[in-house]
Amino acid sequence: MSIKVIVAGFKGRMGSTAVEMVKGDDELTLAALLDPFAAEKEVDGVPVFTDKADLVGFDADVWVDFTIPAVAYENTRFALENGFAPVVGTTGFTEAQIQKLTDLSKDKSIGGLIAPNFAIGAILLMKFAAEASKYFPDLEIIELHHDKKKDAPSGTAVKTAELIREVRESKRQGAEDEMETLAGARGAEFDGFRIHSVRLPGLVAHQEVIFGAQGEGLTLRHDSYDRISFMSGVNLGIKEVVKRDQLVYGLEHLL
Amino acid sequence: MSIKVIVAGFKGRMGSTAVEMVKGDDELTLAALLDPFAAEKEVDGVPVFTDKADLVGFDADVWVDFTIPAVAYENTRFALENGFAPVVGTTGFTEAQIQKLTDLSKDKSIGGLIAPNFAIGAILLMKFAAEASKYFPDLEIIELHHDKKKDAPSGTAVKTAELIREVRESKRQGAEDEMETLAGARGAEFDGFRIHSVRLPGLVAHQEVIFGAQGEGLTLRHDSYDRISFMSGVNLGIKEVVKRDQLVYGLEHLL
Amino acid sequence: MSIKVIVAGFKGRMGSTAVEMVKGDDELTLAALLDPFAAEKEVDGVPVFTDKADLVGFDADVWVDFTIPAVAYENTRFALENGFAPVVGTTGFTEAQIQKLTDLSKDKSIGGLIAPNFAIGAILLMKFAAEASKYFPDLEIIELHHDKKKDAPSGTAVKTAELIREVRESKRQGAEDEMETLAGARGAEFDGFRIHSVRLPGLVAHQEVIFGAQGEGLTLRHDSYDRISFMSGVNLGIKEVVKRDQLVYGLEHLL
Amino acid sequence: MSIKVIVAGFKGRMGSTAVEMVKGDDELTLAALLDPFAAEKEVDGVPVFTDKADLVGFDADVWVDFTIPAVAYENTRFALENGFAPVVGTTGFTEAQIQKLTDLSKDKSIGGLIAPNFAIGAILLMKFAAEASKYFPDLEIIELHHDKKKDAPSGTAVKTAELIREVRESKRQGAEDEMETLAGARGAEFDGFRIHSVRLPGLVAHQEVIFGAQGEGLTLRHDSYDRISFMSGVNLGIKEVVKRDQLVYGLEHLL
Repeated sequence: MSIKVIVAGFKGRMGSTAVEMVKGDDELTLAALLDPFAAEKEVDGVPVFTDKADLVGFDADVWVDFTIPAVAYENTRFALENGFAPVVGTTGFTEAQIQKLTDLSKDKSIGGLIAPNFAIGAILLMKFAAEASKYFPDLEIIELHHDKKKDAPSGTAVKTAELIREVRESKRQGAEDEMETLAGARGAEFDGFRIHSVRLPGLVAHQEVIFGAQGEGLTLRHDSYDRISFMSGVNLGIKEVVKRDQLVYGLEHLL
Repeated sequence: MSIKVIVAGFKGRMGSTAVEMVKGDDELTLAALLDPFAAEKEVDGVPVFTDKADLVGFDADVWVDFTIPAVAYENTRFALENGFAPVVGTTGFTEAQIQKLTDLSKDKSIGGLIAPNFAIGAILLMKFAAEASKYFPDLEIIELHHDKKKDAPSGTAVKTAELIREVRESKRQGAEDEMETLAGARGAEFDGFRIHSVRLPGLVAHQEVIFGAQGEGLTLRHDSYDRISFMSGVNLGIKEVVKRDQLVYGLEHLL
Repeated sequence: MSIKVIVAGFKGRMGSTAVEMVKGDDELTLAALLDPFAAEKEVDGVPVFTDKADLVGFDADVWVDFTIPAVAYENTRFALENGFAPVVGTTGFTEAQIQKLTDLSKDKSIGGLIAPNFAIGAILLMKFAAEASKYFPDLEIIELHHDKKKDAPSGTAVKTAELIREVRESKRQGAEDEMETLAGARGAEFDGFRIHSVRLPGLVAHQEVIFGAQGEGLTLRHDSYDRISFMSGVNLGIKEVVKRDQLVYGLEHLL
Repeated sequence: MSIKVIVAGFKGRMGSTAVEMVKGDDELTLAALLDPFAAEKEVDGVPVFTDKADLVGFDADVWVDFTIPAVAYENTRFALENGFAPVVGTTGFTEAQIQKLTDLSKDKSIGGLIAPNFAIGAILLMKFAAEASKYFPDLEIIELHHDKKKDAPSGTAVKTAELIREVRESKRQGAEDEMETLAGARGAEFDGFRIHSVRLPGLVAHQEVIFGAQGEGLTLRHDSYDRISFMSGVNLGIKEVVKRDQLVYGLEHLL
């Protein structure tokens, strides 16, 4: 039984990539496309809609949403009301909105996913890093990005550090009397451990968490080369939400 | 409340390292030492025994055993019978012996651990690798050891590969028509993936599991520099077995 | 003084990338474009030619050639005859042709470059690896590519191995009695050392040379993510050939 | 023809390691041992001296010196005066002393080496890093050491950075408007590039220099696990000084 998928925001960069992904998976069927700016009536036999109201009663299982913050909440609510399990990559939801949508999903017994990050590898890295920090409280994070990136450390590094802080026994690392002869050498301090940000042309988005203990080391590294990597997370989301009866926030809850 | 520890086999290399570890941890107290070849009556105020029979009724919580295969089973049985939770690094137990000791531990409601490998980092690596392989079925293992090592791949690499095989959807990786112009370049085949063994002077024991997917990669690496690294696993074992009511085989069951 | 550059084959993938690179460098001026399939007469004010004969007497310093093997030899000869220093990325030259062009360049006292590989990083890696192998004869090569690649090991790995063999004291590495319990684990043998080929989705083209000695290790790694990386080699070639009085084969001769 | 070696300071840690190294190499013969604190008259048939004056006229080729700063200058001068090519690992020479010894070596036409660092791998890394920085001016240094180390960055990292600064076209790396949301994340600034210092238990002494350019990356890494690694540099020094006619400062001049 193929899963029938609607893609909302199909003319955008992420939306169009999602369309290709759905088409390329035998377990999925592209059922409908939605975009207010679409001029065509169908694409390769798949009906195109410009107004979501026309999708009331439509036969589909999952609503993939890569639209814009201004409409994503309303879209997700609409999906749940109409029996489509939402898989949403659009950002900008408030906590209150997520709570309302979760409650609605429970009422309707429909699964769903809102995910700020669809990169399975990045999420596994965070999860493993947090788990390892229980046993190896001495660690440092090195994140490496292209040299156009303005902020340091990266949002992913900070998120990783926060997840580690939740489970790691807090400790101040390094020699008690350590001293920087060049300011900044030891990186940014976070809960007693250090975060280093490398910026170089040619790099895309990479992160290493290095753990050290007496006589051993453990290193976890994620390399992200291309946004195409998000699609395996979207794919996983589609296949999981149809088995669930409640919306979750964060892909990690489906792993 | 400090945990009182007996170390059996305290004159051996691992046993003596365990003694130092116990002494260095404020939460542990070295209660007694056992070794048939010991001549001294006490070491730094800690009583030394040459016959385990003299330890019947002794006041201690945990029995750390780094003896030899010939006596380890009998020692572990003795520990359980006398109310000492065993933490055993000696090898050579048969499956039947492990079953009998597990049953005995349940009868007595005493925790215990028999571990062929005490390196927490190596065990975390295996666990993470197996979990990641569910989402990233494309992977290769590279293990690197000193150049005196005779067998390839390493036992740890094979164990890792087996754990991955249990959960990964089996697939043959690489291009369908791939071709080695130099035999062996693609490494050893295992369930459709590849294992590579590097041997160089200066290396100790290292292992990498590299996962690849569209647009991303995930790399897990463990470096083992020194046997001292086993002690964090022994330490963890001691602190966990006193909370348990059953013996387990494999440190992974306490993580 | 800006260097005036003609780009031959400017409508191809490499040629058009070269055009962008020249435009983006203040020290270079795009002087003319050549392609037999060009319909336009000029591009952004730069004259377009379809026949090289029309470039006799043209005012330019360097002839960048990304055409096809069938015309590249004749193009390079033409460039030298007309006082343009050639920088040629087209492949397929015979040794005899390279010799004739080198001789011609000497007669004319004009610099030039024919390069099968413009990736400076890859060439530096080979050079450093060969030099290190004089002091560290124990080494292994690991090359990693996307999983559509058919041949293993890669051409670059074999080239690297050959350069190492020229200077390294030949020795058979590994334990004398080493044994593969899974065939191929130790990789491909080359002059006593080993080459390993990893193939995974997500990877592009990567190579590591790992050296080991008593108590230390040295690792050299090159990562190639995109063909854009070739342009720094083309850029270097343009700036070097104008200072030289003879054509060379291989970018390494300009480093 | 075996090279006859005197080891001065043979009772110290480095000196005694040097003795073992000389004994283990068929191309070298241990000719004499010197140490003011030696009580024995000979060791395995090799004569032991407590006063260097007794070595005037002794038949030997090379004087290996691992003594103390207070006597090393006088020892080296003595070696040169008496026809022994010095290989000196003792530190604390002033520039003026090095100049005088170099001049003396020229007068006597005797080779010699004074080396603050005998780790060939570390020296190759510096050399390669400096060379690569000519072509890849965008780079960052990450050095990793055990967590007892007080100063950051390491002396080797600063030395590497200085060698790079000598040949690299100075530039300020990173985005013009880059911003640290956690102070220190971007590491220490040196000539426009960055140095990061990682400190973790289990680590020994490691250094990475990462270069980035459009579409590619080059990484050079040295791992130092044990002081035994210095001996390959001492060995190389012994074999090179006998071929030379002048003392040099720094092992890099013999590579």
